[in-house]
Amino acid sequence: MMDYKFANRISTLAPSAIREILKYSSEPGFISLAAGSPASDAFPVEEISKISAQIFAERPMEALHYSVSEGYTPLRETVRDYMRKTQSVGNDDDNILITSGAQQVMDLATKAICNEGDAIICESPSFVGSVNAFRSYGLNLVGVPMESDGMNMEVLEQKLKTTPNVKLIYVIPNFQNPTGFCMSYEKRVRLYELAKQYSVMIIEDNPYGDIRFTGEPIPAIKSMDTDGLVIYAGSFSKVLAPAMRVGFCIAPAPVIQKMVVCKQVSDVHTQMWSQIITHQFMTKCDYAAHLEKIRAIYREKAKKAQEFIDKYIGDTVSYDAIEGGLFLWLRLPDSIPSEQVCTAALKYKVAVVPGSAFSIEGDDKINCIRINYSAPSDENLEKGIQLLAKTLEEFK
Amino acid sequence: MMDYKFANRISTLAPSAIREILKYSSEPGFISLAAGSPASDAFPVEEISKISAQIFAERPMEALHYSVSEGYTPLRETVRDYMRKTQSVGNDDDNILITSGAQQVMDLATKAICNEGDAIICESPSFVGSVNAFRSYGLNLVGVPMESDGMNMEVLEQKLKTTPNVKLIYVIPNFQNPTGFCMSYEKRVRLYELAKQYSVMIIEDNPYGDIRFTGEPIPAIKSMDTDGLVIYAGSFSKVLAPAMRVGFCIAPAPVIQKMVVCKQVSDVHTQMWSQIITHQFMTKCDYAAHLEKIRAIYREKAKKAQEFIDKYIGDTVSYDAIEGGLFLWLRLPDSIPSEQVCTAALKYKVAVVPGSAFSIEGDDKINCIRINYSAPSDENLEKGIQLLAKTLEEFK
Repeated sequence: MMDYKFANRISTLAPSAIREILKYSSEPGFISLAAGSPASDAFPVEEISKISAQIFAERPMEALHYSVSEGYTPLRETVRDYMRKTQSVGNDDDNILITSGAQQVMDLATKAICNEGDAIICESPSFVGSVNAFRSYGLNLVGVPMESDGMNMEVLEQKLKTTPNVKLIYVIPNFQNPTGFCMSYEKRVRLYELAKQYSVMIIEDNPYGDIRFTGEPIPAIKSMDTDGLVIYAGSFSKVLAPAMRVGFCIAPAPVIQKMVVCKQVSDVHTQMWSQIITHQFMTKCDYAAHLEKIRAIYREKAKKAQEFIDKYIGDTVSYDAIEGGLFLWLRLPDSIPSEQVCTAALKYKVAVVPGSAFSIEGDDKINCIRINYSAPSDENLEKGIQLLAKTLEEFK
Repeated sequence: MMDYKFANRISTLAPSAIREILKYSSEPGFISLAAGSPASDAFPVEEISKISAQIFAERPMEALHYSVSEGYTPLRETVRDYMRKTQSVGNDDDNILITSGAQQVMDLATKAICNEGDAIICESPSFVGSVNAFRSYGLNLVGVPMESDGMNMEVLEQKLKTTPNVKLIYVIPNFQNPTGFCMSYEKRVRLYELAKQYSVMIIEDNPYGDIRFTGEPIPAIKSMDTDGLVIYAGSFSKVLAPAMRVGFCIAPAPVIQKMVVCKQVSDVHTQMWSQIITHQFMTKCDYAAHLEKIRAIYREKAKKAQEFIDKYIGDTVSYDAIEGGLFLWLRLPDSIPSEQVCTAALKYKVAVVPGSAFSIEGDDKINCIRINYSAPSDENLEKGIQLLAKTLEEFK
């Protein structure tokens, strides 16, 4: 048999702690608070079903024939106008690309911009999917500690000063994965200044921004982008449905042009039915009302999650009250090691992920646990937190 | 403004001659014989529409929620069994991955296996989409001249001997793009022997194999794969519909495992609705009858194309009678330069692609023109070839 040798770039992509936990969590009887999935009762099933029937009644060929790599033109125009009007994201120097989920933005942007060995600065902890995309192009990953109001700007500046060949800074400014934290307006302004000063581009990943159920939205970094520094990634996975795999990228035209070339050789174009559904949903349904509806669902779920935590483990853990997104970030006392808690929890058939699994350089001391409250039912959420309470008792 | 710098790996991916031609060909009044698209009247629109309605009536969540990167399990099993039974493709050492079109197989396999600077051997000319995927990972592309019965085996052996770090050999054994040629059984056996001898893996790309409308199928190289050397890429783009973006890869399990990791960081998983439609179509409809039906459509179209060519330009060009696929490969006499013909044809509003656009190393003397007969209507096909005849007259 062949002696298989693989590319160096993927040698660091070993199965992660999260994957191991997720493997368990799909077993029968398991309660998973470990996923990053949106709430299924927020999916507009009826509307998607109706639009789909219309597509096949009126113009099936549009949904079935090859299209262009840039994306379905009516959807591109609708999203571009919507993002400009509602969030001041995108200007005349920008262009838009429809992607197969926001994950593909990380893939294509990295591929287009970075050589192997170039550096990317990330919040630490950060979203494993993006971080592994960066690793898969052989990048040097540099972590900057995450704080309740976003990454530490002094450390960021120092890293920009001392790290060779930094090409990108990757941030999730709203309801970050895994922490749920938002970057403050002041830090967004400062981040932009620093990126400009050091001629480094920013990837602003915003999959959760639409799920703000309390408090005031903070302007996107992209809305300040007069210098063409920001690559903005948006997603319909949480607003419509993740399996449709529709995301988008708004970035300076020269960057989009290169990303389109990379997309063409990756998957030619994003699935058309999904693109048409998304366009029709945004233009023919009441999009604003839909967003309000899903925010209400998440608001209710988040309230319950916080009640259960306060009730069952409030004496052991602490957390910042959440204003949106999918996650709660539990801080554990030093005496209780989060990694061991997550392993022990598997015995009780509850799956939660230790904060350290999201570390960038592996040496951060992150004694936290990420709780996903959007995917489980209310019943399972309560039961899961009760089981986590039982687990925590073992460590006292 | 930012001074944009891009990755070295994409520096050779400049807009190609084909893209320029395709740009013209989408203008109103243009007749395109330049595309690589399947015949739209072969798409099973009614069946897809019905299955889609059923999905939303019976189990919408399956089509909307996140799934695994490997692909929808029932589809994986159905395709695996089908390919084993009908084509002896895949054995117990292999695994299967559902991809976002067969294009993604090239992307993921290259990413998983090749370091920058590694070499890949390709038929020359070959499919630009795959070739650019290889280029986008900084590979050294080595061309082996294409003959009517497949790549020249003496040159292949010499290239394997003399080229450092050859990791892959890329072939389209059935109705190759752009030539329409099939690799003979003898050459398939020899190719496999050589790959084994030099410990190089083969990517067998087979998007057109199902569209054989005359003659006997030749066994897949993958059907001989007792040593785990062959990565097989299949596609539903020509059999169902391209915009659904469903392809698959059958390859040794360790290779699939690495490709899954790469897929996870690229687009997480292939769009679910498309995967379920494909599965239902294969299991609930008469798949064999559907294949017969589309073969009949292509047989008829190919017959007409050859009649028109014989009638209008038969005295100037020559070609091998075709038994399947989407393309006809016109050989021009030395006195008539194909590139100039293709440029001149644009004046007459007909788009065809010169063979040189598919060259691997750019130095091949390929005085041919690729004709796509599957996408245009019969009327446009005739008119297009008449216009090509007019163009050729200019060069006499």
